[in-house]
Amino acid sequence: MELINEDSPRRALAGVRVGKNVKFFNFVNAYGCEIGDNTKVGSFVEIQRNARIGRNCKVSSHTFICEGVVVEDEVFIGHNVSFINDKLPRAANADGTLKTDADWKVQGTLVRRGASIGTGSTILCGVTIGRDAVVGAGSVVTRDVPDGATVAGNPARPLSRKPKA
Amino acid sequence: MELINEDSPRRALAGVRVGKNVKFFNFVNAYGCEIGDNTKVGSFVEIQRNARIGRNCKVSSHTFICEGVVVEDEVFIGHNVSFINDKLPRAANADGTLKTDADWKVQGTLVRRGASIGTGSTILCGVTIGRDAVVGAGSVVTRDVPDGATVAGNPARPLSRKPKA
Amino acid sequence: MELINEDSPRRALAGVRVGKNVKFFNFVNAYGCEIGDNTKVGSFVEIQRNARIGRNCKVSSHTFICEGVVVEDEVFIGHNVSFINDKLPRAANADGTLKTDADWKVQGTLVRRGASIGTGSTILCGVTIGRDAVVGAGSVVTRDVPDGATVAGNPARPLSRKPKA
Repeated sequence: MELINEDSPRRALAGVRVGKNVKFFNFVNAYGCEIGDNTKVGSFVEIQRNARIGRNCKVSSHTFICEGVVVEDEVFIGHNVSFINDKLPRAANADGTLKTDADWKVQGTLVRRGASIGTGSTILCGVTIGRDAVVGAGSVVTRDVPDGATVAGNPARPLSRKPKA
Repeated sequence: MELINEDSPRRALAGVRVGKNVKFFNFVNAYGCEIGDNTKVGSFVEIQRNARIGRNCKVSSHTFICEGVVVEDEVFIGHNVSFINDKLPRAANADGTLKTDADWKVQGTLVRRGASIGTGSTILCGVTIGRDAVVGAGSVVTRDVPDGATVAGNPARPLSRKPKA
Repeated sequence: MELINEDSPRRALAGVRVGKNVKFFNFVNAYGCEIGDNTKVGSFVEIQRNARIGRNCKVSSHTFICEGVVVEDEVFIGHNVSFINDKLPRAANADGTLKTDADWKVQGTLVRRGASIGTGSTILCGVTIGRDAVVGAGSVVTRDVPDGATVAGNPARPLSRKPKA
């Protein structure tokens, strides 16, 4: 892997470790993260430090990937998908002082190989999205998604499949 | 119509066909699309190739309009609205090779004249949103919306109107 | 407070009144608004004129704060949160002419001190989110949230708390 920095009008990349053929589109903010071979990162995407994205993935426009998220290889992440790493975020402590990194513990999220996360989804922290699982567009994922499962809705639940007559 | 290109810090416009008085705000990424007279395009918007937007429309900030979407005249599209053109998106094929455009068939979406799509909505592919229809904020539209109908929710359903006593 | 303007590739700040130690990240579009001491504004955020944000707040990436929104001190606003100020937005009048500011009346929204708005939420207009209230991630808030309450879902409802045995 190679460590890159780019400070251009369209891209703010600071200390990003990339594999081969990683492609960034316009207006990207990424820092301290790792992105594997052949992965594409769309416009208006932010990827925070200590996020790790595998090879052959697609991270579509307007998506936010926070610290603590690990995305394995061959994962599709739709447009406007948001991850979370804090279960009870607050701006300030009870005494009114501003929260700092010291007041805060990252809760991780794992997206396993080949999964597909639909556009407009929100992924709560502390969950695992299983191998080849599908998260339908517009879902709010609040718990683990088993390998190969398809979930959708708010909160996301397994899609019911009516038996064919 | 006029074909424009702009490669400035705030706008990446490549091969965009525009009518008269089209206005782009800051941080816009658009390419190979068509936008009619007097339409306004907000900040942090991406519009992909082969998308067509009519006259007198408003495309609000943070919205994503993908290939295959046709928006007729006088349509309001709220902030942070996402369209989709692929029913089962995957990053890679079963053999692990990266998907290319050849592996993929666009499913179109039509938004008819005068419709209003609320902020934060996700519009699945293959649907038609009817004339003067209203999609409530935060909806996930999974099927056609009839002309003049109002829908909301995830999945979006017609708003129930209790009869007045 | 100090009135600032910044016209750089990463920031379009026009007539923004700021307190001390306000921090803007990359790719921010803000105009005619007010932001209090120590508040942080993330990437890909837009804040419109006449919005007011208090002290010690966090406005996370991809969030849209529109005219008519008042955010008190110590409020956490997650990523990809959208506010609204128009109940029935339309692009054009019935006669087909484009809507202008004169055709439109702002409906305000108030977020009270210490509240926390989860990532991916949509907040309809005309509501008050109470002191220290929590809006769960991915919610669509359609009515007032009482002080100290926790709501979630689409539409957002109070979280049921099962009594412990």
